[in-house]
Amino acid sequence: MSRFSFYQRFSRAFNGHPSLANILVVFSISGGGLVAYSESKSYDGVNIVNPSEVDSKKKRVVVLGTGWAGTSFLKSLKNSSYDVEVISPRNYFAFTPLLPSVTCGTVEARSIVEPIRNIVRKKDLDICYWEAECFKIDAKNKKVYCRSNQGNNLNGNEEFVVDYDYLVIAMGARSNTFNTPGVEENCHFLKEVEDAQKIRRTVIDCFERASLPNLSDEERKKILQFVVVGGGPTGVEFSAELHDFVNEDLVKLYPKVKDLVKITLLEAGDHILNMFDKRITAFAEEKFQREGIDVKLGSMVVKVSDKEISTKERGNGEISSMPYGMVVWSTGIGTRPVVMDFMKQIGQTNRRAIATDEWLRVEGCDSIYALGDCATINQRKVMEDISAIFSKADKDKSGTLTVKEFQEVVDDICERYPQLELYLKNKQMGSIVDLLKDSKGDVAKESIELNIEEFKKALSQVDSQMKNLPATAQVATQQGSYLANCFNRMEECEKNPEGPLRFRGEGRHRFRPFRYKHFGQFAPLGGEQTAAQLPGDWVSIGRSSQWLWYSVYASKLVSWRTRTLVVSDWTKRFVFGRDSSSI
Amino acid sequence: MSRFSFYQRFSRAFNGHPSLANILVVFSISGGGLVAYSESKSYDGVNIVNPSEVDSKKKRVVVLGTGWAGTSFLKSLKNSSYDVEVISPRNYFAFTPLLPSVTCGTVEARSIVEPIRNIVRKKDLDICYWEAECFKIDAKNKKVYCRSNQGNNLNGNEEFVVDYDYLVIAMGARSNTFNTPGVEENCHFLKEVEDAQKIRRTVIDCFERASLPNLSDEERKKILQFVVVGGGPTGVEFSAELHDFVNEDLVKLYPKVKDLVKITLLEAGDHILNMFDKRITAFAEEKFQREGIDVKLGSMVVKVSDKEISTKERGNGEISSMPYGMVVWSTGIGTRPVVMDFMKQIGQTNRRAIATDEWLRVEGCDSIYALGDCATINQRKVMEDISAIFSKADKDKSGTLTVKEFQEVVDDICERYPQLELYLKNKQMGSIVDLLKDSKGDVAKESIELNIEEFKKALSQVDSQMKNLPATAQVATQQGSYLANCFNRMEECEKNPEGPLRFRGEGRHRFRPFRYKHFGQFAPLGGEQTAAQLPGDWVSIGRSSQWLWYSVYASKLVSWRTRTLVVSDWTKRFVFGRDSSSI
Repeated sequence: MSRFSFYQRFSRAFNGHPSLANILVVFSISGGGLVAYSESKSYDGVNIVNPSEVDSKKKRVVVLGTGWAGTSFLKSLKNSSYDVEVISPRNYFAFTPLLPSVTCGTVEARSIVEPIRNIVRKKDLDICYWEAECFKIDAKNKKVYCRSNQGNNLNGNEEFVVDYDYLVIAMGARSNTFNTPGVEENCHFLKEVEDAQKIRRTVIDCFERASLPNLSDEERKKILQFVVVGGGPTGVEFSAELHDFVNEDLVKLYPKVKDLVKITLLEAGDHILNMFDKRITAFAEEKFQREGIDVKLGSMVVKVSDKEISTKERGNGEISSMPYGMVVWSTGIGTRPVVMDFMKQIGQTNRRAIATDEWLRVEGCDSIYALGDCATINQRKVMEDISAIFSKADKDKSGTLTVKEFQEVVDDICERYPQLELYLKNKQMGSIVDLLKDSKGDVAKESIELNIEEFKKALSQVDSQMKNLPATAQVATQQGSYLANCFNRMEECEKNPEGPLRFRGEGRHRFRPFRYKHFGQFAPLGGEQTAAQLPGDWVSIGRSSQWLWYSVYASKLVSWRTRTLVVSDWTKRFVFGRDSSSI
Repeated sequence: MSRFSFYQRFSRAFNGHPSLANILVVFSISGGGLVAYSESKSYDGVNIVNPSEVDSKKKRVVVLGTGWAGTSFLKSLKNSSYDVEVISPRNYFAFTPLLPSVTCGTVEARSIVEPIRNIVRKKDLDICYWEAECFKIDAKNKKVYCRSNQGNNLNGNEEFVVDYDYLVIAMGARSNTFNTPGVEENCHFLKEVEDAQKIRRTVIDCFERASLPNLSDEERKKILQFVVVGGGPTGVEFSAELHDFVNEDLVKLYPKVKDLVKITLLEAGDHILNMFDKRITAFAEEKFQREGIDVKLGSMVVKVSDKEISTKERGNGEISSMPYGMVVWSTGIGTRPVVMDFMKQIGQTNRRAIATDEWLRVEGCDSIYALGDCATINQRKVMEDISAIFSKADKDKSGTLTVKEFQEVVDDICERYPQLELYLKNKQMGSIVDLLKDSKGDVAKESIELNIEEFKKALSQVDSQMKNLPATAQVATQQGSYLANCFNRMEECEKNPEGPLRFRGEGRHRFRPFRYKHFGQFAPLGGEQTAAQLPGDWVSIGRSSQWLWYSVYASKLVSWRTRTLVVSDWTKRFVFGRDSSSI
């Protein structure tokens, strides 16, 4: 918090003096990580197990995926007592928050990627990378089946099987089409670097096509109708980028068709950016309207043909169609087929993502971990364990719980069930004693004594505070480094468990459960304006947040190479504009 | 020449002090065009016809192609009395000499391209660009047939016909496979930006494939066998780039397979770089041998299957095969189908390229010009016109030619038949009088008098000096700006023809014929070493020429944008190495 109030004051100064902002960027960048934004460093500085202490037969850890979660895991892994194999169809890590910038050439694709071999090479660990796609996980026999994705010259050797002792599933998600007909075939997605490159080419293609002779203005308008489906941060940022690209760069080169361009943003809900503060939503909707981006709320896509997109108004159920030149589909995430198959195998059906416990272990599996967008933490309910908690706390087995007894286990309860802490905070209670007091009425703290029913009643509302974590880079990164730290201290914590009390079992949990720290979120809105929502409901919109965005993103990039490239791309864009060559 | 001796001295100084070289580059770049290398500026500074003087109905000039020739034409065109339409499937100009650098990521693809709309926009001319491919030229009806290359959404409007008053054909050439079976399907070419990008991806793919588990070393070796066909400047530069990429960057990331990589360069002739000085050839062959690049001379490719490439030894006719991971085919240029079709139409069969006269007008056609790689100048022979020359020179119709008579037309002859000047230079004769003297024996200059037979004898060897121009960017650029200058001064020179006497007709030619000025050639050999062959047989090999190469290429880039980007790419490569992400 103190960090952000520093920025708050700092950025206010910039509203009047935009040139000062340059200093901020340079400062942040040269400082490297001044702004610790999405990556929690709280797990650093742990002891590393001496390799000589461990068994000579190394355990094999297989990591599937090189996205935020997998890469963060690999970067934080320091224990050399594992044989690590990384399998992913992409031999690089991509800084996905900048993908919308790649779609219009504000940043080049290569500037936001770093070869995974480069990332893992720096360590004295046995990390080995294979460019292949895992198409089957066999949890029973502890094997994963993989296929090289460039097969034709391998003489049948394009498939291989890898054994594991520990499996880390960090394969991410795919775009969710909600089975809308025609989406897969006719829409662009925005999840991979290739998607962004394809969108960039298609935008230019549309402008070139619309400039051909022999077309009526009607036809040109159709070709220059860009449709963005999904009013989340990605869809909004892409719309804004496209608008800037058209109005800052393309109008100069395509003067004859510039007035025929139309960008339409379709959102099924009531508002765009609905996970953000209302002030941000209102600002964004107003800004888009002012700029001529057509935001259609309550509009659900029902079908996409090769020429038209059909939508249904949520209000009156009316279905209408409009021709388009390009559709970008960004409505959230779905499950990858291999993950779906794995979930079926382990009995987790009818779920969107792999369920894990608070230690990121896949439920119902041995030695398998899942993190990032392909997983959700199935947080344990207090009410499920309420009897166990009571009897563990009731040390003297008196059938009632005194405040003293309770206070001895309260830290463990709060650690094991973080919803309790959240509940107290929301109810503005200083400590758990207030909660007990609340249920007993106004009595002296020392004389409070609860039986099991009263205890249940006191905690009955606590579980309402449970929330799934969002599918963001921030969550995935924190999970990756959390898990790596568990691996780093596996033997150490075996001997000295550091986790909370096991209420249902004996002793303590080996590790503290994963806890997410939210550092805030950005929504770039184009025209050098960004909305930032930081913890404590602090909201900032405008040029100053844009510079904060520049600083944070530059400092969070994975390597000095990408950092330099992205900053030089930004500079290049300011000086020369965006390139419109159709390559 | 004085310019190059300046460099000569200058670059010698750098052999001992490499750091000085940085100054040279910065100097050249900030100077912009200090080194006027491939582009002749001798046609600049001409008068532009006032638009009000010309007919209100503008003539329509259609330019096919946006390569070196087409772009140079468009850049130099200043006369606003034309309606110019540019048609090309690529909406950008690519600085092709840097394509080999793009294959390995020394330079990014986008850094060497500039949108053609950006290039033509700066002028107050009516230049209009359409992204389409011309698939038929109808010379009889003065029409070209074009097709948009992204058709599917145009409702049948993807084809269109354009009328022209003047047609400028600058469509370049395609790679020549010599109809070798399997080349089209299995080899990579290196003519377009997309080719270079594909090669880059394939190189990384080969390394990733070879790193997969379950492969024998034999199989890994096959995958890491890179074959380059053609020992011309492109093939040699690509081999060198690939060698550097592997040894400077990839060995660090793929330590397990680095010793299995092999680069083989196949050349059908006796030597690589055979258009260069022998010193350069010898140096290059020795350097490649030292570095382990396997140069196979006298080796003709007869077939390429999906796994093997078969070659025939020119010496013993023996055919052998070797497996490969990637083949790059760069053996020279062939004719595009549409150009072939056009040549058939106008009766130019059995030729490699469109024949034009010295004014770049297509032979046998009205108002059609051809330049760059798709055309060759069919230079007129002196011996064909010898009688006409004689009678034109013999003003008093005496049947004999005196030196005085001859001297009156000698400038026109030399201008019309440049082979004469070349012949005199090679024979080390000061003037044409020496040639006449030579045929008459040792008589006083004033008393020389030749009849037609003696005149024929004197000039009989002159035509042996005729040579086709090479298919280089340098030639194409000079042709483009030459032709633009003809168009710029069309009306002016109609009134006051500036060309040489018409020996077969009346009056003078409207323009001076095209004359090529050779400014030298580079052959980058990798490892920061370049061979340079400059006019006057001046040869330089090594680090100093590499810096000359950097300077010249940086200064010749088409715009400040590309210049900045390429220099920053070079810097980036020095600092961070080349990127190996497979995107």
